[in-house]
Amino acid sequence: MTAITPTTTVVPEPTTDVELEKLLEAAQTAAAPLAALRPAERAALLDAVAVALERAADHLIPTAEKETRLPEARLRAELKRTTFQLRLFGEVLRDGGYLDARIDHADVNWPMGAPRPDIRRVLVPVGPVVVFAASNFPFAFSVAGGDTASALAAGSPVLLKAHSGHPALSRLTAEVVVAALRDAGAPAGTFALITGTASGAAALRDPRVKAGAFTGSIPGGRALFDIASSRPEPIPFFGELGSNNPAFVTDAAAAERGAEIAAGFVHSFTLGAGQFCTKPGMLFVPAGSDMVDVLRSAALPSAAPLLNDRIQSGYTEVLRSLQSNPRLEVLAQGTGPLANPPAPTLLLTTAEDMLADPHALQTECFGPTAVVVTYDDETALPGLAETFAGQLTATIHGTNSCHVAPLVTVLARKAGRVVWNQWPTGVSVTYAQQHGGPYPATTAAGSTSVGTAAIERFLRPVAYQGFPQHLLPEAIREENPLQLPRLIDGRLQA
Amino acid sequence: MTAITPTTTVVPEPTTDVELEKLLEAAQTAAAPLAALRPAERAALLDAVAVALERAADHLIPTAEKETRLPEARLRAELKRTTFQLRLFGEVLRDGGYLDARIDHADVNWPMGAPRPDIRRVLVPVGPVVVFAASNFPFAFSVAGGDTASALAAGSPVLLKAHSGHPALSRLTAEVVVAALRDAGAPAGTFALITGTASGAAALRDPRVKAGAFTGSIPGGRALFDIASSRPEPIPFFGELGSNNPAFVTDAAAAERGAEIAAGFVHSFTLGAGQFCTKPGMLFVPAGSDMVDVLRSAALPSAAPLLNDRIQSGYTEVLRSLQSNPRLEVLAQGTGPLANPPAPTLLLTTAEDMLADPHALQTECFGPTAVVVTYDDETALPGLAETFAGQLTATIHGTNSCHVAPLVTVLARKAGRVVWNQWPTGVSVTYAQQHGGPYPATTAAGSTSVGTAAIERFLRPVAYQGFPQHLLPEAIREENPLQLPRLIDGRLQA
Repeated sequence: MTAITPTTTVVPEPTTDVELEKLLEAAQTAAAPLAALRPAERAALLDAVAVALERAADHLIPTAEKETRLPEARLRAELKRTTFQLRLFGEVLRDGGYLDARIDHADVNWPMGAPRPDIRRVLVPVGPVVVFAASNFPFAFSVAGGDTASALAAGSPVLLKAHSGHPALSRLTAEVVVAALRDAGAPAGTFALITGTASGAAALRDPRVKAGAFTGSIPGGRALFDIASSRPEPIPFFGELGSNNPAFVTDAAAAERGAEIAAGFVHSFTLGAGQFCTKPGMLFVPAGSDMVDVLRSAALPSAAPLLNDRIQSGYTEVLRSLQSNPRLEVLAQGTGPLANPPAPTLLLTTAEDMLADPHALQTECFGPTAVVVTYDDETALPGLAETFAGQLTATIHGTNSCHVAPLVTVLARKAGRVVWNQWPTGVSVTYAQQHGGPYPATTAAGSTSVGTAAIERFLRPVAYQGFPQHLLPEAIREENPLQLPRLIDGRLQA
Repeated sequence: MTAITPTTTVVPEPTTDVELEKLLEAAQTAAAPLAALRPAERAALLDAVAVALERAADHLIPTAEKETRLPEARLRAELKRTTFQLRLFGEVLRDGGYLDARIDHADVNWPMGAPRPDIRRVLVPVGPVVVFAASNFPFAFSVAGGDTASALAAGSPVLLKAHSGHPALSRLTAEVVVAALRDAGAPAGTFALITGTASGAAALRDPRVKAGAFTGSIPGGRALFDIASSRPEPIPFFGELGSNNPAFVTDAAAAERGAEIAAGFVHSFTLGAGQFCTKPGMLFVPAGSDMVDVLRSAALPSAAPLLNDRIQSGYTEVLRSLQSNPRLEVLAQGTGPLANPPAPTLLLTTAEDMLADPHALQTECFGPTAVVVTYDDETALPGLAETFAGQLTATIHGTNSCHVAPLVTVLARKAGRVVWNQWPTGVSVTYAQQHGGPYPATTAAGSTSVGTAAIERFLRPVAYQGFPQHLLPEAIREENPLQLPRLIDGRLQA
């Protein structure tokens, strides 16, 4: 293991064209040997990266604290999440079900009307991927984050475009990752860091790159999606962009536990100073309940510094625009200075006013601000839900006797994850997690960027027809040397 | 069942804007009730369509014969394929594995560092889909073809843009489908036919439409892909565009059974008058073998009418362009008139000449024409394979002692299906089939348009967090009422 030198916080020079060309060539060269590794061998690489990150924690955490203004405890928890998800993808690889291996034996009586040849299908890596790191998770959605972990697990080399919000941490993390991969025997070129907006766009345009992944803003993500889609050879672009994450409180729930729900909401929308893509940005409460009064007198946290100056000024700008909207009034505000950054803020409106200007009022405000909407009639909730564009999450607080099935139906069409009597922040990394949703929540509603299914983004199917055993990938050889669950002649064999 | 009136071959008027608006609204209205049906209930709808098509065969076949110039036996076989695949998707629905149902029970000790909530994930239909029918499969890739079957199976309503090559057949088939669905109790708006290029594009632009599927040319498919990608809300577009489908014969295979391979090649590239997207368009043979001589004296079929005048003139034009290319000479030609349409034609070149102008020589020629390429050194085959863009298929004829692993590796990167000692035409509809490939073979390399996995194109995942049982979709309720294979806490339970 190479010694890690703590990096200074000097902003690194953007990757030059000459450097980028070398890194792209190296990534392409790495693609075949990385794809040729057995899944368990790639799992060992991910494990090695996890161990190396843990060993480097005492360098990584202070660097992250300096650059992101996030507290140490949060950063240590996030690093744990990061190493956990690297190892979870290792488990996915060792299980092998992700390969969706299928074998159809030859069948002269196949009822299609013509004999069926021997056909075997398996997923293979797409090739080099460009990952654009996020600002708000300097570990878990950054250099060694979920997109990197899932792409490497799939067997696709990664060019990681560093986020400008934490350049020194990005550089240091990349050094750890590169050294760990090298020492564990990964092909040279499996992973590299690139810096600078132009480099990221150039990499995405390069014909050697076969997919992109991104977490960030709607305008930034859309611009990159447009680049990926308008290439001579278009490639998939998995962008996680923006979300309002509305939450709906039924009459019965408000009556039963309005104060508890209000407290949970305040905790959720101010968690991490509201800098989560799953922050609940709008809460619908019954006009007749006392929830508005409870929220008016809620003790909001005091102002806390946001991730970086750019995020802080962006938050201030959107909040000012909301505050100047005549349909919104300030319901509550945290203590502390009201500028740079503004204190946590709750705004208030009515369902009628929201319906009059949904686009403005549902705008994502990245920071500790949310809008409370009072409604008169619970049966109007599905219609109110219809006004939303695609969402990462949507939440309902209800009771078992509420007639919310129509609302659930609308929200399942609008969002990637629907939450019941909990809050959407704190996205667990699991097998069944879905962190995605229709545009503009993401640019690829069929995919997730959190959870084990995230690996599917970087795979494509190949069928082998009539092949002798020795020329087949191991995953689809008759004797099943990798011990995979497989679909044999249409029947699943676990 | 409504009586089917044989339709005249008068070209129908294009769908008007007013009609299209009604059909889009009906499709959107149908989306929720169609999605709410149990998988087995949708299977019954597909079965009903299959039965209705079989009952209408004696109307459908003569209409198809008039419009497509395809012989009756071929059309009857294709209709059988069509009803088979409708029923096969019914089987997929009854099995339910396609739902990729996952359940993570709550786990306070989840090693991520925070308790795991109860999360359950299932695939749901994307919503209304526009399907653009193909010219060359008037049944199997047309009105009631694979795209329609897989979209309806997924639970997505279909607007079917008829191909102008067989308007009366399209209208008649649509009448059968609409009547069968209605009589089987499908929601009104589940399926509708639209006609006219402008209507197809307008439907693809409409915000109520959530995906597109297409089989056809590269320029046509790319134009539609660009529409789908540049919408305010971009949607996935599954286009199957064009492919050369190269085939490679090793030294040993040529020596062992050159004449047999040559005969198989001639059969495959002239099958259906060469009007298959999997027609092998280029055959690499050893310069030293006698395969060139065998092919020079091969008895090619005589000229046969192509599907329609447009395809005939397109074929004539591309063939003339190839014949005027100084790097190509005519190796063999079928008997019959050499114009309108030209007789089946084999062209000849060398690997060196192909490398000098790969783009022109690898152009897809939709009709019974192919190019034979002689190579000097078998170790050059992987490099020759590298010159190809994305392909639907790639074929190797070898022996078990050939060192073709490097060639297989390149071809698996270039193509969706790799074929060994067989021919790529005659795409079987199976569980493991993969009919797709990197661009320009398709616009979505991660998907297939043939085989049971085609259903995945029209689904997206939704996670339910913390929900009570009665509000969950049946697929992810604890007691497993649909008897699905599911991933429970990361373990597959078949």
